[in-house]
Formats: sequence, structure tokens, C-alpha cells
Amino acid sequence: MPYDSTAPAAAPPLGVGMVGYAFMGQAHSQGWRTVGRVFDLPLRPALAAVCGRDPAAVRTAAERLGWAAAETDWRALIARPDVQLVDICTPGDSHAEIAIAALAAGKHVLCEKPLANTVEEAEAMAAAARAARERGQVAMVGFNYRRTPALALARRMVADGRLGELRHVRVCYLQDWLVDPAFPLAWRLRREAAGSGALGDLGAHAVDLAQHLAGAPLAGVSAQTETFVRERPLREGEPDGERGPVTVDDAAVFTGRFGSGALASFEVTRVAAGRKNALRVELNGTLGSLAFDLERLNELEFHDHTQTAGEAGFRRILVTEHDHPYLEAWWPPGHGLGYEHTFTHQARDLVHAVATGTAPAPSFDDGLQVQRVLAAVEESAGRDCVYTPVQHEASAAGAAAATA
Amino acid sequence: MPYDSTAPAAAPPLGVGMVGYAFMGQAHSQGWRTVGRVFDLPLRPALAAVCGRDPAAVRTAAERLGWAAAETDWRALIARPDVQLVDICTPGDSHAEIAIAALAAGKHVLCEKPLANTVEEAEAMAAAARAARERGQVAMVGFNYRRTPALALARRMVADGRLGELRHVRVCYLQDWLVDPAFPLAWRLRREAAGSGALGDLGAHAVDLAQHLAGAPLAGVSAQTETFVRERPLREGEPDGERGPVTVDDAAVFTGRFGSGALASFEVTRVAAGRKNALRVELNGTLGSLAFDLERLNELEFHDHTQTAGEAGFRRILVTEHDHPYLEAWWPPGHGLGYEHTFTHQARDLVHAVATGTAPAPSFDDGLQVQRVLAAVEESAGRDCVYTPVQHEASAAGAAAATA
Amino acid sequence: MPYDSTAPAAAPPLGVGMVGYAFMGQAHSQGWRTVGRVFDLPLRPALAAVCGRDPAAVRTAAERLGWAAAETDWRALIARPDVQLVDICTPGDSHAEIAIAALAAGKHVLCEKPLANTVEEAEAMAAAARAARERGQVAMVGFNYRRTPALALARRMVADGRLGELRHVRVCYLQDWLVDPAFPLAWRLRREAAGSGALGDLGAHAVDLAQHLAGAPLAGVSAQTETFVRERPLREGEPDGERGPVTVDDAAVFTGRFGSGALASFEVTRVAAGRKNALRVELNGTLGSLAFDLERLNELEFHDHTQTAGEAGFRRILVTEHDHPYLEAWWPPGHGLGYEHTFTHQARDLVHAVATGTAPAPSFDDGLQVQRVLAAVEESAGRDCVYTPVQHEASAAGAAAATA
Amino acid sequence: MPYDSTAPAAAPPLGVGMVGYAFMGQAHSQGWRTVGRVFDLPLRPALAAVCGRDPAAVRTAAERLGWAAAETDWRALIARPDVQLVDICTPGDSHAEIAIAALAAGKHVLCEKPLANTVEEAEAMAAAARAARERGQVAMVGFNYRRTPALALARRMVADGRLGELRHVRVCYLQDWLVDPAFPLAWRLRREAAGSGALGDLGAHAVDLAQHLAGAPLAGVSAQTETFVRERPLREGEPDGERGPVTVDDAAVFTGRFGSGALASFEVTRVAAGRKNALRVELNGTLGSLAFDLERLNELEFHDHTQTAGEAGFRRILVTEHDHPYLEAWWPPGHGLGYEHTFTHQARDLVHAVATGTAPAPSFDDGLQVQRVLAAVEESAGRDCVYTPVQHEASAAGAAAATA
Repeated sequence: MPYDSTAPAAAPPLGVGMVGYAFMGQAHSQGWRTVGRVFDLPLRPALAAVCGRDPAAVRTAAERLGWAAAETDWRALIARPDVQLVDICTPGDSHAEIAIAALAAGKHVLCEKPLANTVEEAEAMAAAARAARERGQVAMVGFNYRRTPALALARRMVADGRLGELRHVRVCYLQDWLVDPAFPLAWRLRREAAGSGALGDLGAHAVDLAQHLAGAPLAGVSAQTETFVRERPLREGEPDGERGPVTVDDAAVFTGRFGSGALASFEVTRVAAGRKNALRVELNGTLGSLAFDLERLNELEFHDHTQTAGEAGFRRILVTEHDHPYLEAWWPPGHGLGYEHTFTHQARDLVHAVATGTAPAPSFDDGLQVQRVLAAVEESAGRDCVYTPVQHEASAAGAAAATA
Repeated sequence: MPYDSTAPAAAPPLGVGMVGYAFMGQAHSQGWRTVGRVFDLPLRPALAAVCGRDPAAVRTAAERLGWAAAETDWRALIARPDVQLVDICTPGDSHAEIAIAALAAGKHVLCEKPLANTVEEAEAMAAAARAARERGQVAMVGFNYRRTPALALARRMVADGRLGELRHVRVCYLQDWLVDPAFPLAWRLRREAAGSGALGDLGAHAVDLAQHLAGAPLAGVSAQTETFVRERPLREGEPDGERGPVTVDDAAVFTGRFGSGALASFEVTRVAAGRKNALRVELNGTLGSLAFDLERLNELEFHDHTQTAGEAGFRRILVTEHDHPYLEAWWPPGHGLGYEHTFTHQARDLVHAVATGTAPAPSFDDGLQVQRVLAAVEESAGRDCVYTPVQHEASAAGAAAATA
Repeated sequence: MPYDSTAPAAAPPLGVGMVGYAFMGQAHSQGWRTVGRVFDLPLRPALAAVCGRDPAAVRTAAERLGWAAAETDWRALIARPDVQLVDICTPGDSHAEIAIAALAAGKHVLCEKPLANTVEEAEAMAAAARAARERGQVAMVGFNYRRTPALALARRMVADGRLGELRHVRVCYLQDWLVDPAFPLAWRLRREAAGSGALGDLGAHAVDLAQHLAGAPLAGVSAQTETFVRERPLREGEPDGERGPVTVDDAAVFTGRFGSGALASFEVTRVAAGRKNALRVELNGTLGSLAFDLERLNELEFHDHTQTAGEAGFRRILVTEHDHPYLEAWWPPGHGLGYEHTFTHQARDLVHAVATGTAPAPSFDDGLQVQRVLAAVEESAGRDCVYTPVQHEASAAGAAAATA
Repeated sequence: MPYDSTAPAAAPPLGVGMVGYAFMGQAHSQGWRTVGRVFDLPLRPALAAVCGRDPAAVRTAAERLGWAAAETDWRALIARPDVQLVDICTPGDSHAEIAIAALAAGKHVLCEKPLANTVEEAEAMAAAARAARERGQVAMVGFNYRRTPALALARRMVADGRLGELRHVRVCYLQDWLVDPAFPLAWRLRREAAGSGALGDLGAHAVDLAQHLAGAPLAGVSAQTETFVRERPLREGEPDGERGPVTVDDAAVFTGRFGSGALASFEVTRVAAGRKNALRVELNGTLGSLAFDLERLNELEFHDHTQTAGEAGFRRILVTEHDHPYLEAWWPPGHGLGYEHTFTHQARDLVHAVATGTAPAPSFDDGLQVQRVLAAVEESAGRDCVYTPVQHEASAAGAAAATA
């Protein structure tokens, strides 16, 4: 963890205000607390304030997670002069309102994925981000897995042409926490709050990675979705108590096509018994292939098809070398990172974007594009799997919202 | 390899006549030569005659592969009194004619997969097999991978209810021999001879295994296919010479649905660089999951979801124990088998079926069912991926052919 | 990461002073900064001061790593009233002096491994820790890998009897940073500074884990050591410049025996090309086996030998469940941790030990025991590999030093 | 499986006579039956006669395994004019007598490993083989694992210098069939019949591979052996019946040294719960490393240390390409082989040696060298692990026996 001993003291602060402090808020906090201790940064992130509705709980969270102040109204958080960047870690149905307000208030924004629950909201957010960009503000959506070093290396290798022309992109994201029919009807299983089920939660990551790694958007999709357990107990610990309807999908399987003709296949599910967080990606090109599994996140498998067949094979690159993405600042080779490091890396890149005024990736437009793919998936699933092109023009509703 | 020392001598012979002696014929020969040396059998397979068009070549093949006689006309082979079972190892376009004739001549039949190149031919073959069944003959289609011990164990575990209710079936079959654009336009790349490309070759195995392991037929599918390299050199070794059109698919991606509501996903391709013979199967049920990869064919991974989460995980069963399917006759635990053993196991089961008059699996009806799925895949791919039910009734053409 | 919202505010501070801020100091800092943000603690660690010889550099490090003050004399650090716990991250040759002084000053001590460069120093340190223990102080040696959740789970399973009677313990620790003969003659390659080479660095971890997991000390060892590259350039970047002698081992291979009769085998090396941090552990008992590889640190493989052979196999437990050791405070299942988390866990356990006055493990006596094994290894290697019992009595020199 | 259509018919026969028809006899039979069906051979192996003491049983075995005749006296077998090559598959205590007699009778000899139960017997056999060599006869010892394609490829890569200078050779051979204390006192557990336990059975393979792959003999060793279960029931199925003493080792751990200075480590055991046939080999050199596991015998892992660190890693070569050793005659890439194929390959190489008069490897001298290493292991284990040089001169007893 070498560092330039003169940088930190000189760096001016970047005040961060975070809305929400559940799972994502805790992961983001870890990122904000750590990033300046590890990386050389042009700005020093200051954990200015955290926001939540319950006054006592948010004060405790602030103390616990290291935020200097607590707020109970996100509008107040946005208004704070010591907050230059608003980090949105709330459920998807509030993203649009908060993000658009923060951008309007001149703040930089980091918004958790999925960008929104609907294409219309996402369009409005993207329009707001584009407008704010004119004023020098930056906006980023939190597809943190792009910042796994192994996947960042994968992207670099694809961009360097190491795979040649892509033929196949294959992404599965398998979890199993809904196998148990006694699991209660949490908000994530209600359409009005969550937008969709495995599709929006896992599928958003899967689609973003497919497009990011391929370096191109999906042109269209064909999809099936399913809800295997259609009623669940309303309350945890009361498996025989009152039940209510599950209104989101448990799983989605879909195929896709890139403009280049490359084929894509996707499978996202919360009922794959034994798979805990199996985000698996494989890309096959004319010159080579790459494979990744989030359950072994420090590894990238690479097959170099230009080698003699007799010596070729998938090689397991331990992505812990100092010249691998993000690894210049961490531990010696062979000392692996974990899940939460993706948030530290996200913070690093965002701080650089703010400091240099460069548009960060993934942008709100990228988040919107993912949303459009998910919408096409749902449309196809509702229309007998028919191939459904991904819309690339702003919808009328979105355009209206954007200009409102 | 313990054996009952009294059995072999007493066993009467079962004369086998084989048509074709290329890759499949050689693999089948290895199975026929070996089966009686390893397993206790009620009948002793005798390699009576092999058939091929080139007189000199077929004589050499007979000597090399251990067949007592050579024939150049498959009708003559069928007519031989020392042939009770006809083993068809020719390309798919001749399966129907030979199989129907052999059955008509009162012979048992083993036919390589896919059963035929069209649903109509397959229907005629299945009808002929049903008629022959009345006369005590047996007919089997050569989906040899069912006889991989690990997959036979997988089927046993599913049938025993170890997976509970199935949610997902996921099958990939990835190869890479068509990545190279200089690979010539072989017969396998011409629709008139091969019927289809990766779909019929690899997809037939994938679909058969999905249905066999699940113990149920697919209800419908939605599919995309693609031919990435649309022209290839006509002659091997002349990459810059004259080129012709590739008329079959390089790859197919499709999703499916079982009557139970379980989802299936498939991907078959000949252009996945670095994947040599990666037939990968995963099943997820409410009580457990299974995973398999043909590149590691002696292993089956099993996750028992009834175990405490803290101790559960995919366990690698080395399928070489004496109580595993087919393993009672082979080597001590830990001494793995290879690809060709599936043909020895196929021969074993077929010999038992002949001796006991029991209908063997997979039957021609099973082969027909696979053909219908493949036809639905092609239909869906041609109709914008629309969900296409798998036909279960005999088509008019097939019915006509069957009664002809 | 759920937490008790009332705890943190109430917790009184525990002032920590750290000596050294290189690789280990940075890893420890990450642990101290993070532990109270994630775990519920009875005391709140306060990063009071860091110590180093270069005034400017240590000030920069303090700011960067989050320490409130900087000191240039470790005696001054020890003397600070706001320091209750001294964390020693210096090279091994200074451990004894600093630790004994800190204990004499009434401070708790955490000392990086290996405890010391010689048995005599280690004996003096252990004696000092025992004396301090009478006064309520705690002392711990930093064998952090015990706090990898997978290895903590392994220990729990062994202690629960899941492996039955142990037969074999097998530990390799393979790295490759000395394969390159141009790597310069760093201090780690000089006996006067480092004590030994791979043996003290990697072997100390290997021996500690073997004994910790087995729950018993090694009775004796037989060993070979080797230095493959005996001269190296004195300066980095000058491969053809002046060279000096390497005075420590590149590798050691040794076998051992526990009092129970169980056999142990060890291999530690810095010249295993391609192995970056391959600390591999396998234990075989009469009821089961366990296997671990630090390059995949979120996994533990477990074979339950009480299962039917036909269904048994090494099962891959993803050690990310909430009831796994240390996991109650981290992310949802399937979200893996990294190398540095072991230091956070170490800090957690040490804080609890301080708060409750319980002796923490590994104690200085445990560190001394490891040192005695390493001394026996070196003695055996110098005496034609003869089996060398591990000394369990205090040496005269050590006893004298302890009472000095 | 392409072949030269003119070769087989022209090839003159090579009459093989086999002594013993248990596990090894059955595996060798499979090799002899298959080799000429797959490979182009200059001689056509004819399974002339098999020999065993029980007249009825050997007749049954002959019929079952495909041998033309049965003999009950190995001297009669040797004397048969239709036998040119004697294949010895009996337990080790009869190898010397049969092999020496067969060589004296002018026959070629294939002898199962270990070559003999004692160094003296092995010396006499090696001397007899050298004398026979003068007369144009060949003699080979059956270290069949050398003929696993992956290990043959490994040897080729080492010989081609791909690993540079070797630093480490690491071999484990782990099985678990003696974990159960109710396993009876079979002949393999009695010193008078088996010579030694895991050492002679598994250690012989381990040592042969270490030396073969390294291309050099071991200079000396230091060893420990252990018998964990010292008494076992005399009869199978009577776990509580009369017991007798186990007089061979259950396990051996030893280290070794090559003349080059490279270090070796070995662990062989029959009590590693869950490991069925885990023969694991790793070699680390200055330019690369190789790793192999017999439980995945179609794979070889190769790390090329000359690649950039950021792209390097162990690559999994699926050893099924046509230019891999022995693979020119088998199936298309990706179609794996099994355990028994090593015996087919052994037969192939031996037939070529007979036809060309070339001395085959491993020779009886190679087998003797392994025996000397095992003797040194036992000597070291009996003398407090002291480093014991491997004897390279003929012992007086052996020399006397050789000239007798």
C-alpha cells in the first residue's frame, strides 16, 4: 500500500451526504471511510451527514458508521452546505425524486442500482444528469461489480482486443434465499416497492456487466419469467400465518442479441439451491475467452485462442498483481480482496471524476439503458417471449418528465 | 472387476451388424468388443459384420475393429442370418431408411442420435419401432451420455426425490472447432446432409439430457440461432480457395418450460473458444441441486439443501464407487472411466433389454420427442423467438409415412 | 451488518499505539479503523498514536492511516497515557525489547508474528506476558490467519469432533517472489535482520495453523532447508551490480509428529513459480477431512466420512453464512471477505479479551511454542534431518532473560 | 481414430502370456485386447494364454478376458512356443522368480510394479534383464501412470526445458480404504506377502513419477512411516472376530533431495478420508510449474513463468488434443480417457520396443532404482529420520544373485 506522502494533507475535502443506511448504506460507508486511507486522492471524502427517517436510529447509525451528522429529511441533507455529493442508498422507488432534486441543487450524485423502478423515472433522471453535466456536476449509478478487479481486468482485455470479435456473452446470477417457502413477503417481493424481483435486483447487474464487458448495448431480447412460490406468509417467523401474493418474479431466463450479431444468454434467479451469490460471466470471442464467478472474485479465467491447441487452456489469473486494476494501492500479490472493496473502488473513481470534471461511468444514461433492457425483458415475457427490440429513444413520458 | 465365473460360457450369442465405421462406428465397436469382457451378460455379443460402401476400406475396418465379416450393402447386412441386432452409425439422413428396413426384417436396432434429420422421419421410425415392439423386437436411440455413470447417478437421485420439485434445468454444450474461419465446409455444415448444425449435433444431447434428468418432456421453447461464419472454403487446406455457403447454425440459445412450470435454458455452440466438450448440466430443486461437466465426467456435484446452511455446499462425488451405476464391474474406487465407456454401458443395457424383451430407454419415441423439441426450436428461431409449444401428436406426414 | 443501536455510544475508549507502519502497520490500521464500525464492541478502539523513526514520514503516515498523533521513539509511545494497548508491527529483531517494555509499563500488547527471531527472546517475552497476566494485562501474537472465517470454522469442526481422530495434517505455504534471481538482497534475505527466510515468515504461519487446528503441539520434526539462489544483487534495479550472500533459506520441507501419533508434513517456499499466496491446509481424520487454500479464502472443503460412500465427497462450504465465525457482522451470504478482514477480526477478539480480562489466543506462549518448532526444524536441518524433539521446557538463557 | 488401412493385416503376431488375472491382470487384458484395435502397430498382440493356480477359475478367466488358452503352472506358460512375451501380474513376492525364468527362456517380460519386494530381488532381476538385453530381449516394469497422457505431456514439457531448473517436486498419493478399522487383515497388510504397505504400493508410483518427471534420480531421503491401526480382524465381515497384527505401514511421509539440489516431498497414505486415488504431482521450476491430479487425469495445469505476471496463471490444459502423447489414435478433442487406457499405452510402447529392439522405459534398472529409494525410506524411518543416501551400487547379495 505505497502512497505519495505529500498528497493527503493537501487534498481539499469533498463533503458526502448519504441517504439510507441499510445494507447498501453500510457498504457505501465502508467505501467512503476507507478510500482516502488507501488511495491517493485529489479530494478528501468527508462523511458529512447521513439521512434516515427514524431520528434515534439515524443518530446511532451516524455514530456507528462514522458520519459526522444525522438528518431525518433528505431535502435537508441536500441543502447542507457541507454536502457536495449526495449518495443515494434507498430503495428504487425513491431514487428519481432524490436524485433529480440533488442535481437541481447543484450536487454531484451517486445512485444505487437499479437506477429507477421504471424507464420513465430513469429517463427523467438521465435527462437531469445531462443537464447538470452542463453545469459541471457528475452523476454515477452504482453498478459496483464493474469495480471488481477481475471484471475490470476483463473489460481491459476485451477493449485491448484480446478476445477478438465476440460471439457469445453468457451471464448467470444465481442465489437461493427464496427456495424456502416460509420466507416472508418482504418488500422486495412486492412490485409496488421493488419494481421487479430477481430481474431488477440481479438482472440489472447481469445486463450492465454484459453490455459493459462487451462494450456495446443489447439490441433486443426474448424472455420468460416465473414466480414459483406465489403466496408467502406476511410475517417472518409465522410460516402458518396469514399469506399474501408475491407480485414479482422469482427468476428470469432470457436470450439477447447485440448489434454485432453476438448472442447473449441470461439467467437470474433467487431459487437456485446452493448458489449463494453466483454471478457467472463468460465471454467467447474469435481470439479468446474469459470466465468469472463472483463467488471466487479474485480470479479471472482466460483462454488465449492464439496459443497452440496443445498448450492452450483456461488459465486462472489471480487478480492481485500491482498492475491489475485498483491493485496498485492494496496488498502484495496473492492477498485477496472482498466484496466491499468494490465500493471503495467506486468511491475512488467518483472522487477522481468530481476532481477532474470528467463524466464518470456508469453514467445515468448507462443506468437508463439497463432499465430499457429490463423493460424489454418484461415486455417479451408478457408477449409469449417474442423478440423485443430494446428502445433507444426517449419515451414521450420520460421526455415530458425530463423537461418538467 | 469381479465376475460370476459360470456366466459367460453359458451365454448364447447375439449377432451384431454395424453400418458405418467412422468416429461413431469406432466408438460402438469398442463398446461391443469390451462389454462381455467386463459385465456379466445374458447374451454374448458377437461382432458379426460391419458395412460400408468402399469394399477395401470396409474390409480393413473389419479387421482393425474386430468384425468377423464386411458388407458393402446395408440391405445385405440386414439380411444376414448371423445378425440379430443392427447398429446404425451412419449420418442422420440415412437413419430412417435403414432402421425401418431392419425392424421390418425382424432385427433389433440401435440407432445413433439424432434419431433422424426431420420430425417426419422420426415419426415413421417411432411407428415402426412400436410395431416391431409388438413382435418382441427392441429399438434404442444412442443418447450415450445418459450412460455416463455420473449422469446415471444424477437421474437416480432426481428419481429418488433428492432434489424435491425442480425449478431450473440449465444445459450448455460448448465446443470450439468452428472458431477458425479456415475450417472447411464439411458435410456437417450443409443442411441437406446434417439437418442442422450445433442444434442437431449438440442440442439433441442437451435436450435429451434435460428431459431425461427432469423425468418430463419440455412443453415449449423460445429460441435464437446464428451462423457467424457464413461462407467457408470448400476444401480443407485451401483457406483462400473457393468458398461456399454454410447452411446450418453455428450456435443456438434457447429457453424452455416444463409442464411443471420449471424453467430450462440451453446454449449449444461450436464457437466457444477454449471449450472442447463442455456439456454442462445443472438442476436446481427445492431440496437440492446437481451439477455436471462432461470435461470432468467422473464427477457429480451435489448440494443437499436439507443440510444446515453453515455446513452445506456443493459436494464433489467421485462417481467411481461400486454401488454407482455401471461401476459394479469396473475398477476400484477412484479409478476413473472415459468417454468411450458410455458405449460399453449402452451395449450392456441393450443386451439386457434384448434378453429380457424389455423395452430399452431411450426408445425411438424418446428420440422422436427430442426431434420435436429441436423442430420447435427452429420454428421459434424463425418466428422472432415466439414461444413455440412442442408438438406431441403425430403429424399427418409422419402418420402417413408410418402406415406406408 | 445488523447492530445493537445502543452499544457504540456507551463504549469507553481503548487507546491503541502502533509501532511501525509498513505492510503490517497498514493492515493493522485497517483493522483498528474498521472493527468498531462493524462489530459491537465493549470498548471503542481509538487510534491514539503511531510510531516511526523518520519524523516527516511518520506524520504523513499518521494522517494517511488515521492515527491521531505521531511519535518517533517507541519508548515515548509506550509512555503515552492515552495508549493502553501497544501494537508491534516492526521486524522481528525488535519485538522482544518493545513488547517486554510495554508489558512492564502496564500496557496490553499485540505483537506481529513471528513472536521473535530466537527462542531465547520468545521465552523472555512469554515470561513477561505471564507476569503481566497476573496484573490483568493481555498479550497476543498476530497469527492472523486463525481469524480467516474458513479456518476458524475448521477449528470449530475439529473441536466438535467432526474429524474424529486425526491421522494427517498437511500444510504447504507456497509463494514465488524469489524465483527471479535479480530480486535484490533485501533485509528479509539477511539472517541478522530476519532470523530466517521462508521458514520464519511462512513456516511460522504453517506451524501455528497445524498446531491450532489439530489442537495439539508438535512433538518433533525432521527437516531440510535450502537456499537456491545464494548471491543476489545488493541493490534493486541493478541486477548486474555488486552482489552479496543470501543468509536465509529460500525453502524448507519438513515432516512432524504429534503426541497422538498423527503425522504432519510441511512445505514452505518462496520459489514455487505461479503460487502467489498458496497456504494450503488439509487434515484427515477417522471421521472426516478438511481442506483449505488461502488463495480461495472464503471456502472450506469438508468431507464427511460418516456419509454413505456413494454420496460422499468433499463439499465446498462457502464460509459466508451468518452463523459462521465472524460473519454475524458482515454482508449477506455469498458476499466474500478479503485478506485484511483477518486483522479486523483479530482486533475484535483482542478488544473483547481486554474488556473481559480473558487471556487471548494465540498467547505469547503459543508464539513461543511455534518458535521452538522452528528452532527444532533448523536444528534437524543442520543435523542430517535427524528427528528432533520440540523442546517444551524453558531454556536456561530464556529463564535468565525472563527473570532479568 | 484414423488409421493406416494397410498396416494391421501385414503385422506378424506377438504372443503374450499373462500370469495372474486379478485386478492388474484384468487391466492388462483390457490393454492387450484394445491396443491393436486403436493404434497402428508393427506387431499384432495375440492373447495366447493366461496362467493361474485354480484350473476351473483360470479357464473361466481365460474365456472372460479373451485369452486363447489357460495354464496352471507359470513354467508351462513360459515354455509355450506361442508366447514371446510374459506379462507378470502376480503379487510382488513372485516377480523375481518368474521374471528371471522368463528372461532365461528367451522371452520378453512386462512386470507389474513394484519390481520386487526387496532390493536384492530387484538387483537380480535387473541383472537378468541386462543380460537378456544382450540377446535382444526387452524387459519393462509396469509404472503405468507414466502413460497417462497428461503426465507424458508433463515429462515432454520438462524435457523441453519449459520449467527451467527444477526447485521443487511434490508428490502425494492419498487413498482412504484403510480408514475403517473393521477392514480385514488382507494379504496387502502382511509384510511377508506385500513387502510394505502404502510405501511399496503407492510410494513406488510416487517415487517413479518424481524421478521420471524430473529426469533424475533422488540422491537421498528422510522419512517417517506409521501404522495407525495395528490390529485388524482376520476375516472380512467379522469385525469383532479374531484379530492379527498389521505388519506394514498405513502411511509414509518423506522428503528427498536430487543431485541438482532440488527438494522433493512425498506423502503416501491409505487413511486420507475422502481421497480415493489422489495422486497429485507438482513441479516448480525457474521458468514454470506443472500440477496434476489423477482424480482428474485428463487435465494438466501449467504455469508459464515467462509470461507477464498480470496475465500469468495456472492454465488447465485438457490433454485430449491429437498432438498430445498417445492421443493421435483416440477420440476428438475433449473426449477424455480413463484409468485403463494407461495399460493400452503401455502395451503400445512395449510392442514398439519389441519390434524395434529398443530398450523400453521404465526398464528393470529404473524399477530397481525405485526399490532402492523405498529401501532408503524404510532405513531412514528406522533410524530417527536421518538423511539416508540412495544406494546406487549393486549390493553384494544382489550381485551374487545376479551371477548365480
